[in-house]
Amino acid sequence: MFYHDKKLQYKVRVEKPNPQFARLLQQAIGGIEGEIRVCLQYLFQAWNSRGPVRYRDMLLDTGTEEMAHIEMLATAVALNLEGASGDLVDTIVGKDPIVAAIMGGMDPRHYLSGGMGALAADANGVPFNGSWVVSTGNTAADMYSNVNAESSGRVLATRLYELTDDPGMKDMLSFLIARDTMHQNQWLAVLEELGHGDLRNVHPIPNSFPQEKENQDVNYVFVNTNIDPSSPSVGQNRRWTHGKSIDGKSQFREMKAQPMGPEPQLGPPMPSAYAQTEQIVEANSKA
Amino acid sequence: MFYHDKKLQYKVRVEKPNPQFARLLQQAIGGIEGEIRVCLQYLFQAWNSRGPVRYRDMLLDTGTEEMAHIEMLATAVALNLEGASGDLVDTIVGKDPIVAAIMGGMDPRHYLSGGMGALAADANGVPFNGSWVVSTGNTAADMYSNVNAESSGRVLATRLYELTDDPGMKDMLSFLIARDTMHQNQWLAVLEELGHGDLRNVHPIPNSFPQEKENQDVNYVFVNTNIDPSSPSVGQNRRWTHGKSIDGKSQFREMKAQPMGPEPQLGPPMPSAYAQTEQIVEANSKA
Amino acid sequence: MFYHDKKLQYKVRVEKPNPQFARLLQQAIGGIEGEIRVCLQYLFQAWNSRGPVRYRDMLLDTGTEEMAHIEMLATAVALNLEGASGDLVDTIVGKDPIVAAIMGGMDPRHYLSGGMGALAADANGVPFNGSWVVSTGNTAADMYSNVNAESSGRVLATRLYELTDDPGMKDMLSFLIARDTMHQNQWLAVLEELGHGDLRNVHPIPNSFPQEKENQDVNYVFVNTNIDPSSPSVGQNRRWTHGKSIDGKSQFREMKAQPMGPEPQLGPPMPSAYAQTEQIVEANSKA
Amino acid sequence: MFYHDKKLQYKVRVEKPNPQFARLLQQAIGGIEGEIRVCLQYLFQAWNSRGPVRYRDMLLDTGTEEMAHIEMLATAVALNLEGASGDLVDTIVGKDPIVAAIMGGMDPRHYLSGGMGALAADANGVPFNGSWVVSTGNTAADMYSNVNAESSGRVLATRLYELTDDPGMKDMLSFLIARDTMHQNQWLAVLEELGHGDLRNVHPIPNSFPQEKENQDVNYVFVNTNIDPSSPSVGQNRRWTHGKSIDGKSQFREMKAQPMGPEPQLGPPMPSAYAQTEQIVEANSKA
Amino acid sequence: MFYHDKKLQYKVRVEKPNPQFARLLQQAIGGIEGEIRVCLQYLFQAWNSRGPVRYRDMLLDTGTEEMAHIEMLATAVALNLEGASGDLVDTIVGKDPIVAAIMGGMDPRHYLSGGMGALAADANGVPFNGSWVVSTGNTAADMYSNVNAESSGRVLATRLYELTDDPGMKDMLSFLIARDTMHQNQWLAVLEELGHGDLRNVHPIPNSFPQEKENQDVNYVFVNTNIDPSSPSVGQNRRWTHGKSIDGKSQFREMKAQPMGPEPQLGPPMPSAYAQTEQIVEANSKA
Amino acid sequence: MFYHDKKLQYKVRVEKPNPQFARLLQQAIGGIEGEIRVCLQYLFQAWNSRGPVRYRDMLLDTGTEEMAHIEMLATAVALNLEGASGDLVDTIVGKDPIVAAIMGGMDPRHYLSGGMGALAADANGVPFNGSWVVSTGNTAADMYSNVNAESSGRVLATRLYELTDDPGMKDMLSFLIARDTMHQNQWLAVLEELGHGDLRNVHPIPNSFPQEKENQDVNYVFVNTNIDPSSPSVGQNRRWTHGKSIDGKSQFREMKAQPMGPEPQLGPPMPSAYAQTEQIVEANSKA
Repeated sequence: MFYHDKKLQYKVRVEKPNPQFARLLQQAIGGIEGEIRVCLQYLFQAWNSRGPVRYRDMLLDTGTEEMAHIEMLATAVALNLEGASGDLVDTIVGKDPIVAAIMGGMDPRHYLSGGMGALAADANGVPFNGSWVVSTGNTAADMYSNVNAESSGRVLATRLYELTDDPGMKDMLSFLIARDTMHQNQWLAVLEELGHGDLRNVHPIPNSFPQEKENQDVNYVFVNTNIDPSSPSVGQNRRWTHGKSIDGKSQFREMKAQPMGPEPQLGPPMPSAYAQTEQIVEANSKA
Repeated sequence: MFYHDKKLQYKVRVEKPNPQFARLLQQAIGGIEGEIRVCLQYLFQAWNSRGPVRYRDMLLDTGTEEMAHIEMLATAVALNLEGASGDLVDTIVGKDPIVAAIMGGMDPRHYLSGGMGALAADANGVPFNGSWVVSTGNTAADMYSNVNAESSGRVLATRLYELTDDPGMKDMLSFLIARDTMHQNQWLAVLEELGHGDLRNVHPIPNSFPQEKENQDVNYVFVNTNIDPSSPSVGQNRRWTHGKSIDGKSQFREMKAQPMGPEPQLGPPMPSAYAQTEQIVEANSKA
Repeated sequence: MFYHDKKLQYKVRVEKPNPQFARLLQQAIGGIEGEIRVCLQYLFQAWNSRGPVRYRDMLLDTGTEEMAHIEMLATAVALNLEGASGDLVDTIVGKDPIVAAIMGGMDPRHYLSGGMGALAADANGVPFNGSWVVSTGNTAADMYSNVNAESSGRVLATRLYELTDDPGMKDMLSFLIARDTMHQNQWLAVLEELGHGDLRNVHPIPNSFPQEKENQDVNYVFVNTNIDPSSPSVGQNRRWTHGKSIDGKSQFREMKAQPMGPEPQLGPPMPSAYAQTEQIVEANSKA
Repeated sequence: MFYHDKKLQYKVRVEKPNPQFARLLQQAIGGIEGEIRVCLQYLFQAWNSRGPVRYRDMLLDTGTEEMAHIEMLATAVALNLEGASGDLVDTIVGKDPIVAAIMGGMDPRHYLSGGMGALAADANGVPFNGSWVVSTGNTAADMYSNVNAESSGRVLATRLYELTDDPGMKDMLSFLIARDTMHQNQWLAVLEELGHGDLRNVHPIPNSFPQEKENQDVNYVFVNTNIDPSSPSVGQNRRWTHGKSIDGKSQFREMKAQPMGPEPQLGPPMPSAYAQTEQIVEANSKA
Repeated sequence: MFYHDKKLQYKVRVEKPNPQFARLLQQAIGGIEGEIRVCLQYLFQAWNSRGPVRYRDMLLDTGTEEMAHIEMLATAVALNLEGASGDLVDTIVGKDPIVAAIMGGMDPRHYLSGGMGALAADANGVPFNGSWVVSTGNTAADMYSNVNAESSGRVLATRLYELTDDPGMKDMLSFLIARDTMHQNQWLAVLEELGHGDLRNVHPIPNSFPQEKENQDVNYVFVNTNIDPSSPSVGQNRRWTHGKSIDGKSQFREMKAQPMGPEPQLGPPMPSAYAQTEQIVEANSKA
Repeated sequence: MFYHDKKLQYKVRVEKPNPQFARLLQQAIGGIEGEIRVCLQYLFQAWNSRGPVRYRDMLLDTGTEEMAHIEMLATAVALNLEGASGDLVDTIVGKDPIVAAIMGGMDPRHYLSGGMGALAADANGVPFNGSWVVSTGNTAADMYSNVNAESSGRVLATRLYELTDDPGMKDMLSFLIARDTMHQNQWLAVLEELGHGDLRNVHPIPNSFPQEKENQDVNYVFVNTNIDPSSPSVGQNRRWTHGKSIDGKSQFREMKAQPMGPEPQLGPPMPSAYAQTEQIVEANSKA
């Protein structure tokens, strides 16, 4: 279960409120690379965990921390919107076109729906979507999803860092960027453990499926679908076409794409599905 | 640009059509771990690529291959629905409760909307969603998203393999599982190249942001948010709390969660946002 | 910021695992009347709060409690899915039609995507949607949204209670139903305070907008749109057509629906919007 | 503006309530081919209409009629769910596996969220989505969307007709199927008028754009992307590769797909977008 | 069933067309607090109503009225977009940066997709979503949803009123604000009737569930999750921690949050769900 | 299966990069009238096709071509965003309000999430949605959906053409507009074939349902729902109220809307659905 503290995990200061930046921060709250997603993702992975227990514990710890990051960002949105209060009415009703234009870059729902508060949505107002919460029951697959989330999240945070010169916002983002560094590292630590010190043992994921059941002709073959004979990759000795496979279990090869199956043959339309009569007649006359 | 061949990449046979299994296959077509997502994800990463060119080429090759996988799975859905034709009407109108019950497990939209054909949706009929297509402009972040997609995709395919005893379906899935093995490997090969042979050089992602700008107090510290003094992880020497960080750039440490920021103080409600009068009065009397 | 405890807020026991009931429980996790929604709704209302502080504190307290309810329900889903392990493979591959039929009522993504774990989705697999998180900046409007959420949530919980005879599940639901009772009461307590002891003072919401600016002819008039002269409500003395208005500020009246505005007249199609030529010609010839 | 009558447009009778059929009917309420979509689509087209007025009037008439169809279908759902009342509790708690299995085919939200009432969702519980409401400002484009909506809607209704043997439901569907016949015809009548009696004059839509601005080399050429030399369509004299074009303005031709553009060349990654360092270095060294 | 009148319920005038304001009005059409939602919500509640009949009648009346409000707002959007016609092309192609900037605040889909007409979407272009239509089968729960919808709707309308100085728009909004006043009152009138004159009898909702089945230890206890010992609410005598409960059925109490359940124990991973081998081995070795 | 060529189908040049135009182009990529939709729609129709084979072949050809159009547009987005690189940082941080304002019209996720690359979303950042992919199993219904898609798509392309003065963009759009011309024609060619040269034989769709089963009283009757006696359409001799029906099978007639069904009577609330007690009592006392 959960507890809270009225204090923030890290201080949030805004020297010069900027409603446009408030809109950009929403991507880090409710976007696919944002904090609601990682918070729920780590917690669902913990709640669904069937062992080992030490991973469940870590997921609960970090999922709980992410909740504090949503709080910091929502607070930053609210503080950036405060600056909008003085001029908003005058500008939107059109008295000053330049200021109006700047205001035009804010999310209008910050005022209309939120009364100058944060939303559970991204920088375009698209709502957070629960489909982004990945919890597969396979720890390695989950950890790659987590590394990806922290990577695209850190990319986002560095871009936000670039787009502000407010010292308070830069300080807050410096904190969040640092936490993403740690989180990338800790999910990799799990992968290292799962691979007994060598990430390659982790693959192919899931590694509990008997690999001899997979088609042995195509499992380490790069399929080149490029039709242009003047730009073949065949023979170019790429890392993914030659040499030992990354999982250490085979050799990479390459092939030009070609059909291994026939043209599909479906049965004629069922009468009860009400295709057009002509369709049915012709399809049956072919059979 | 793109070309097609009327033949399939690999043969698709269904010996005993099964409309329930057709529903399950939809997850591999239109689910978050399905083929429409990886097809579009690799192609958008290619189209957005600003170099190196060899990664763009590979992404185009494999994105094009994934289109053929959607085709195989859609064909498998259509073939599995054929078996439903004989009995469907009788059973749904209620003459045979057991058969009706089995039919109950199919996606009714396979008949109602698709006329016994595949949909761009998951196993619950939830439509494919473009938000799943990740293309960040940072190759390492993208590759982790790709490894995750192929990992959760291979997990899904092995579970589908478990849920059928149709030899044709097992054969098709064996092919797709093998391709997932290759694709996991090839995205890892890019990460290996990006890290000059050591995946750890890749991190923290993005590695082009000056790391000295991130908060140095918290970037390699595991935050333990567990409030229960009887189950501390502090002192337990986990891989993510002690020793060299996975990226090789620091030492892991651990701290108990504690606020580093004050309780937030927002301004009082703006009159123009029309909070309740009592709110405004009390908030202002506090200020 | 937030802390957690590895223990649950209340015990979760499942005596006879039931994957169909696991599916039903998802509505209470990721549905519009579920716990993710109230958790995020109360927390966003807190984070966006501009006073009074005591409401912010209460919202933080209860938002944090709701996180523990998601945890309880996710745990209940995972425990209900355990029972599926023994028979699942045999049944879905079709050896036992009755058991297969029962299994047919489970959410297939609980296995395919979740590996027998909970999802951030409703009972039909539709993902949680951030648009449900209401935080308007007007405390009274927010409290009515909260009372509604706890009312539809308690309705849902009582229906789930009806659909199980597992003593553990009944016990857990009895706890959650009780908490909904408290939460309905506490949001009403805020409304009582806002209305100085009389809920009617709260209305019309927002009560800070000068009511004289609203159209005085129609603000306490029930509009009867029923066209059938044989079933008029006019003259039937309903509570909403006669007597003092509920907010105590006027008298209810009733009117038959009739237009107060003219037929709308839009300008002709703009050339640059490329309507059909015939449209443009005829529209202009009318003008 | 709008009025209502407590009576239905056409009678709705259910002799043998069937909760599975209630679920199927939802597709005709909240699905992409359902009645909420056509109701809103025709009304938005009317409200956005800039002439001719007689099309606006017709759209208002029929949009209003569609509202009555939603009402009939929602009533049919509620009546089909009544039959579930007697046995529901016993069956879902597991006492009778066969009945439970049949119940398993109902939408659980009909009980959990709706208390045995209809939802604004499709047969899989996926909510109605406003993106389906097409109103382009070009009457011909809109009419084709309307013909499509009434075509897929009539296909759906005939399939529902097939799936019930309840005389009341068959009678209601016979009414709705007939109305779809009329509505297909009336939208075609508009197209006939727009084309001065010949549908071909309507095309290409929009016909107000100066056609000489479109690329004259490719506007009546069928592009054959098939790579397999053994199955060319070239030379097969299809209706879309030879003869006068359907719009009567040119001759159809055919070409094998081939690039008309070069390989795209994007600039190197911008420093401020934080790609990986290696990417940036290599991309710039190529430039 | 339904009828229409070509005249509007109330006049809609725009003196100075403003495409930015057209965008803002969309929130009142297709947003969660908008008119499509209340229209469908009241109608579905009516169609699903199983008594008393007088509530069904009122819901039909007001649902029908709301349709006329969508019409007024869609007309207002179309009229506000007319002003964009003269300058649009010049400005977006960049000849005048200031005007271009102002145009930048409009919804581009008003032109691209709608040809200067309204959309079934909110102020950010996010489509209307059927999940917002609440109809629970419990009249009290439904009425609270309705009061909330009219409260957040009136908040929105007052903010729109603030953002325009067009006399026609102010007049239209004054009408809509007035109707929201009435609608708040009429839903409260139903709650008053349901409570026999005292709203408190309504709670806890649903009041038909035997309250003795809910956990008696926690149903009137405020759970304080705040971990900070320096800011306890315990002892502060809030309205929600002391005194008679609002529903009049008990006394409020308060407790500090503490676990009432154990740490959850899930079974080990099922082999058929293909967790990583190491996971399975370690989890089983613990058991 | 599918192949690709690194070259584009047609050249994509941008002389003056314009991030606002990049946003507008997104509508043609990920909007409901965009290229991802038609690409997947034609391919799913092909994969689900049960004959005639020549339609399947054509759908594969054109679906494959559409993939190349997504590629062209994504490339155009990336090239239009290049121009943003020089000034972006300076402007968004607020040093130049006019430039900042122009930047305000771009999609911030093009930078934040895409690193200056295209997204699978529309001009407002709303993700592509798989529900738009129509494949009914009835060729005529599908073809009308295809004609509609190419009509609204061509309308969109002509509007984009209007909004740019970049010669490269105008050239690319001229190509795409031309292809839409061809595609409208080719889907109409199928309808012509299905109707044996007369489109009217196609209707009513599906034409394989025995038309005598539809209600013969209402299938060619226009229902006039207009309540205003001063603006009747009755007697006005519209094309849809008099004369031969468009499908040639009957005569159009007109009727004023009137109920053909009684007021619906639902049973009282089920006890187990937990309506309010008062509801249940009153509803039963009426029965």
